[in-house]
Amino acid sequence: MNFSATSDLKEIRNLVNQELLNFVANENKYLNEIGSELGPVAMAMERFLLDSGKRLRPLFAYIGFLGTGTKPSVEILRAAAALELIHVCALMHDDVMDASDTRRGAPSIHKAFEAMHIEKKLSGSADQFGISAAILLGDLALVWSAKMLHQSGISGDTLIRALPMYDEMRVELMAGQYLDIYEQALATQSVERSLKVARYKSGKYTIERPLHFGAALGGANQELMKTYSDYGLPLGEAFQLRDDILGIFGNPQETGKPAGDDLREGKRTVLLAMVMELADSSQKAEINSALGNQNLELAQVNKVREIFESTGALSQVENLISTLISSAQSALEHGEIEPLAKVALEQLLTIATQRTL
Amino acid sequence: MNFSATSDLKEIRNLVNQELLNFVANENKYLNEIGSELGPVAMAMERFLLDSGKRLRPLFAYIGFLGTGTKPSVEILRAAAALELIHVCALMHDDVMDASDTRRGAPSIHKAFEAMHIEKKLSGSADQFGISAAILLGDLALVWSAKMLHQSGISGDTLIRALPMYDEMRVELMAGQYLDIYEQALATQSVERSLKVARYKSGKYTIERPLHFGAALGGANQELMKTYSDYGLPLGEAFQLRDDILGIFGNPQETGKPAGDDLREGKRTVLLAMVMELADSSQKAEINSALGNQNLELAQVNKVREIFESTGALSQVENLISTLISSAQSALEHGEIEPLAKVALEQLLTIATQRTL
Repeated sequence: MNFSATSDLKEIRNLVNQELLNFVANENKYLNEIGSELGPVAMAMERFLLDSGKRLRPLFAYIGFLGTGTKPSVEILRAAAALELIHVCALMHDDVMDASDTRRGAPSIHKAFEAMHIEKKLSGSADQFGISAAILLGDLALVWSAKMLHQSGISGDTLIRALPMYDEMRVELMAGQYLDIYEQALATQSVERSLKVARYKSGKYTIERPLHFGAALGGANQELMKTYSDYGLPLGEAFQLRDDILGIFGNPQETGKPAGDDLREGKRTVLLAMVMELADSSQKAEINSALGNQNLELAQVNKVREIFESTGALSQVENLISTLISSAQSALEHGEIEPLAKVALEQLLTIATQRTL
Repeated sequence: MNFSATSDLKEIRNLVNQELLNFVANENKYLNEIGSELGPVAMAMERFLLDSGKRLRPLFAYIGFLGTGTKPSVEILRAAAALELIHVCALMHDDVMDASDTRRGAPSIHKAFEAMHIEKKLSGSADQFGISAAILLGDLALVWSAKMLHQSGISGDTLIRALPMYDEMRVELMAGQYLDIYEQALATQSVERSLKVARYKSGKYTIERPLHFGAALGGANQELMKTYSDYGLPLGEAFQLRDDILGIFGNPQETGKPAGDDLREGKRTVLLAMVMELADSSQKAEINSALGNQNLELAQVNKVREIFESTGALSQVENLISTLISSAQSALEHGEIEPLAKVALEQLLTIATQRTL
């Protein structure tokens, strides 16, 4: 197959989407052969992928590969695209764990299957059916990711070089997710602990490891791996901190979640840990009454937002993001990276922390 | 490393256990390095593996390999052992989906983490924390399986030959699990549909695919693959049917579950579908009042057991098991399999359907 190399992020994203859809269409055909009962599974998997966004992990993996200077191919693109399916698993399971009803403005998977249970008048608990389906669809996405990588058409040697990074990324994701649920369950907040969760849950999983995975596909040396860590770890933390801010201040039309959704969910973020260190007792009481309140009104969201601003917590997190971005930028400037890939990594730095593409 | 080949099942099982424990000890060291918060995860993973039983999937994979006549090695043993961790994932997630409180006589993972939440007086819902932890530990087991396979030390060529079987097995497991939860939610019973669930959930996943995986590791030809299907598919269905019987008639001390637990859980099995076809309306009413009854007393279990016997449903399933076993046996007799492996497969036939080792 003829493959024209590109370092244009939108073009790569379109190619990634195409490969993902081809793969899923093929797998769905197989599911439908097993039984028509699996039709809703196939449809939900495809819709979830179509609805989704930035493909950050495939982009970092592919650009990480380009940075090695090795000639790219459609096979490498497919291997990079496979990372998106790990993320599909993470999101589906995350929504069950957080009991989130929506994802990108649409019902989350467990809610969609709960609705199907009700609509088809199935027996037993609709709630439990939805959760079970979401666990299985997430598991399936995790398995599909590996299958897509294995079938990508890359050579055995290339695959074997990249598998350790691939495995590391997945272990760190699950470890980071556990650190997160444990942190959520602790009564007291700590900036330090929240930063560690951000490092494992996002820093490594979203940016550093995808870059390493791409680099390993391209046969990178240890120096490039180190440069990618120096760029990826701070950028990943900045990405998570931006997510924290959007969870409180984000526009529902952009986030697909209600305003101040992290408050409603009672999410323990770095931003929250900071405001708790800075707030006085009446401000703390105001925040505590909002945290985990399922019926939170916009007026109360706005009141809490004001506390994040007046205490300086918001600007502290913004400053931290800037510092982390500078550190990632400097790693990029000093690293030996193929020039077109370097330009793309600069663009990704903005995309990852501004959260638009 | 010096490796003495054996086809003794107990010896292989001990070697499999040793490899699993080595792998998990190593991974747990890494988890503890990430953070002491992960201590309970590490402990739960190890305990779950230690508590568990028959290692059927590693045994079938290893014997499937021996059947090719290729010289075995500790690396192959490790690759076969990796299948057990897929099963750990399946069991952990299954217990969440079935809301089962116990597994092999001990609290299931979500119950154990729920208890930890209560004991440590953590905040938020203990129930939800337990479920989240069990989802993540299952995910981790699924990833560990792949990592154990990738790191087994088998050559790249061998690995690449076996990956398609490995992936197929995992996709079929997840598809079979969904068929199962969907079947559970349907108001009406069907023997045919229940048999299909048994085929995907157990037939392929427990026996046929592990044999294929082992065969692929050994570079088997298509004929041996076919023999393994002819042996493995009926045997796998027989295995599931035996499980159905144990779910109603099993001794709690052997199953690690309360007497008649499948009734309490309202499980839709082939056995149940058969009794529903044969029972009169008062018998059906008796069964329906037991199904899903969390406070089921032993007297009522015994009454329902009697209906399974008097209607002939139990003996129909026993007859079906015998027919399936004969069919597996005949495949074995006619297949070209390395002689020592053939003997082991005969033993496994008994073990898989009598459920003791």
